[in-house]
Amino acid sequence: MLREIAAVGADAARGGFSRAGYSDADRELREWFAGHAEARGLDVERDRNGTLWAWWNPSGSTADAVITGSHLDSVPGGGGYDGPLGVASGLVAVDLLRERAVVPERPIGIAVFPEEEGSRFGVACLGSRLMSGALSPDRALALADREGDTFAEALRRDGLDPAHLGPDPERLARISSFVELHVEQGRGLIDLGKPVAIASSILGHGRWRVTVDGQGNHAGTTLMEDRRDPMVAAARMIVEIRDLARRTPDARATVGRLEPVPGGTNVIASQVRFWIDIRHPDDLVTAALVSEARDRVVAAALDEGCRAEVREESLSTTVDFDLGLREALRTTLPDAPELGTGAGHDAGVLAASVPTAMLFVRNPTGISHSPEELVEDADAELGAVALADVLQELAAPAPGAAVGTDHMMAR
Amino acid sequence: MLREIAAVGADAARGGFSRAGYSDADRELREWFAGHAEARGLDVERDRNGTLWAWWNPSGSTADAVITGSHLDSVPGGGGYDGPLGVASGLVAVDLLRERAVVPERPIGIAVFPEEEGSRFGVACLGSRLMSGALSPDRALALADREGDTFAEALRRDGLDPAHLGPDPERLARISSFVELHVEQGRGLIDLGKPVAIASSILGHGRWRVTVDGQGNHAGTTLMEDRRDPMVAAARMIVEIRDLARRTPDARATVGRLEPVPGGTNVIASQVRFWIDIRHPDDLVTAALVSEARDRVVAAALDEGCRAEVREESLSTTVDFDLGLREALRTTLPDAPELGTGAGHDAGVLAASVPTAMLFVRNPTGISHSPEELVEDADAELGAVALADVLQELAAPAPGAAVGTDHMMAR
Repeated sequence: MLREIAAVGADAARGGFSRAGYSDADRELREWFAGHAEARGLDVERDRNGTLWAWWNPSGSTADAVITGSHLDSVPGGGGYDGPLGVASGLVAVDLLRERAVVPERPIGIAVFPEEEGSRFGVACLGSRLMSGALSPDRALALADREGDTFAEALRRDGLDPAHLGPDPERLARISSFVELHVEQGRGLIDLGKPVAIASSILGHGRWRVTVDGQGNHAGTTLMEDRRDPMVAAARMIVEIRDLARRTPDARATVGRLEPVPGGTNVIASQVRFWIDIRHPDDLVTAALVSEARDRVVAAALDEGCRAEVREESLSTTVDFDLGLREALRTTLPDAPELGTGAGHDAGVLAASVPTAMLFVRNPTGISHSPEELVEDADAELGAVALADVLQELAAPAPGAAVGTDHMMAR
Repeated sequence: MLREIAAVGADAARGGFSRAGYSDADRELREWFAGHAEARGLDVERDRNGTLWAWWNPSGSTADAVITGSHLDSVPGGGGYDGPLGVASGLVAVDLLRERAVVPERPIGIAVFPEEEGSRFGVACLGSRLMSGALSPDRALALADREGDTFAEALRRDGLDPAHLGPDPERLARISSFVELHVEQGRGLIDLGKPVAIASSILGHGRWRVTVDGQGNHAGTTLMEDRRDPMVAAARMIVEIRDLARRTPDARATVGRLEPVPGGTNVIASQVRFWIDIRHPDDLVTAALVSEARDRVVAAALDEGCRAEVREESLSTTVDFDLGLREALRTTLPDAPELGTGAGHDAGVLAASVPTAMLFVRNPTGISHSPEELVEDADAELGAVALADVLQELAAPAPGAAVGTDHMMAR
């Protein structure tokens, strides 16, 4: 199925795919998903926060829905599996359950969350954060992309009403569990020699935007001693932040995006903006890291005659997935190991609102957010089978199962 | 006159103007120039390398033309005077000569050279380099802008035939002198308390593109010790290059443009490209600086597990302007001091082919390649008067003048 979309958002310059949220590529992928869902007789709807839902609901029940799904957007120059694998696996799992003649007692939904990567508007998991109330509509609507296009304008062009954005507790209350399948973004399954894992936790992580202001000037006529060059200040900050993370066990800090203004070869920049991604399992250590990074940024700016500002764009605490649901998954998939991850997901956001779990599928390169990300066909198959097994159990819960007890009492 | 074009290429995001060569803004500015020239009864032509020429030639002579002019393109977010001041001053100088009832014996031409800043295709003074043979047409045609658009395509869209690009010795042979007026891009005239200077020399300068290749990967799942991060490597290089220039008297080294690939916040970059602008009055010191910068780039890349490549994009040796022409200008403008400059100009390129000089007009901020660049109206006026004085002398040479001796013997 993923081969059908191999041309959508293909990025010749970077390699891989650039499928920003609410872009033309994103729209094309959503149409591809809706086409597949409708071909399977699923009911497709789009909620007011931009999430697409495809429903298989033979029982006609309106409560205790079992949800899977993932996202279709990508980082710039990303791989083809991060997101789409979970969406396609949801559709294939429905096929498998039908082949098994399973008739689910609970509604099964496949969700496609918008702007999971935050590559366009800067805040990751934008759709799930809005639905769960983790991000206020006002703050979301004011977000703008690199071209200055606001999220509000992008929504309007895409047929959504910005006024209807925001928390959706009714929809969340109808969900009994959410299980997101995702390509693994590290080497855990390679090292264990297994195709599928159950997620235990997501590292706490956040994004901070650093703006360094100096004095723009001519590269030829300005003496070295007269300069207030924000590029040199930013370079010193980037090295210091890396050194800081290296000295802190289990920490990760990354600068992957940097924009000099105006960005001319023969021009000393007047401003440099860059983004720091910081992650650590212990939220207190993350806070300490950010505080120390901030001190070093300010000191390096001063030392170069510049000014610097550090602004938090998002912050997610470490998430341990639902213990009861993980127990249920371990019972269904006895061969699957449990693995933590450093990558953020919509599942990490929704875990605060509904019992949530994840499945990871082996990535033989161990590389993600890169064209080199890979999933072997055989492993994709095993992942979909595992997801089908899990959905089958959750949608027809055995007496005494750890989740959906209210619903079971009503049966 | 410059107020008429204050909206063309105005850059709301960066401030100032972004008028890339062969862009819509550039085209609009050329139309503005042609309109002004035609309104003055000047003959406007465009040569095969894209340079516009407006001719005032009452004598009908085809030899020993006296040329002034400059460029209309800008760096991204540049000032409004760098380039356009020289073009407008040429037109005003013609008005002044007519008010003085001067009838020049030699043709007077105002030239507008294309892509002087090199902001779009990476090579500065593209038009004058092509005309003089300093750059081969093959190398020029293969240049591409940030969007991958080649110079050949840009020419074609602009009505020029790429096959006709290249050295134009016939045109150069018809020029007896070239005097470019330009806003000063440093503080020389501020310190001297003078409005206009004669240029003595242009610092040797060049551009080198550095490509650092690492391993793109996920910012959350990749341990710090497993990384080969080209952004960290580039940051170390930028600091080292600055330190190197600081330790070398009279040297300038700048990194104003940097592009991470893919450029996502939650992605370790796979590649970082940046450009170094290096300048020094002694060409041997420039060569030594580049060689040492190259060594440090390679060493920092290795140390970070990356690979780096340094490629020369352009190199101009230090230019001392024509001694005879400078002597003539000093006679005409006895109050004008002589000043060197660190900025490159078409005059620096043409100096290898024709007797060339420059006039600088005071910039009260001392800042250039920035929206803060400024020229007071009174100084612009004085600059145009000085240029008119110079053109008057050069176009009706007194017996024994240092330039155009062939032509004088023929009279």
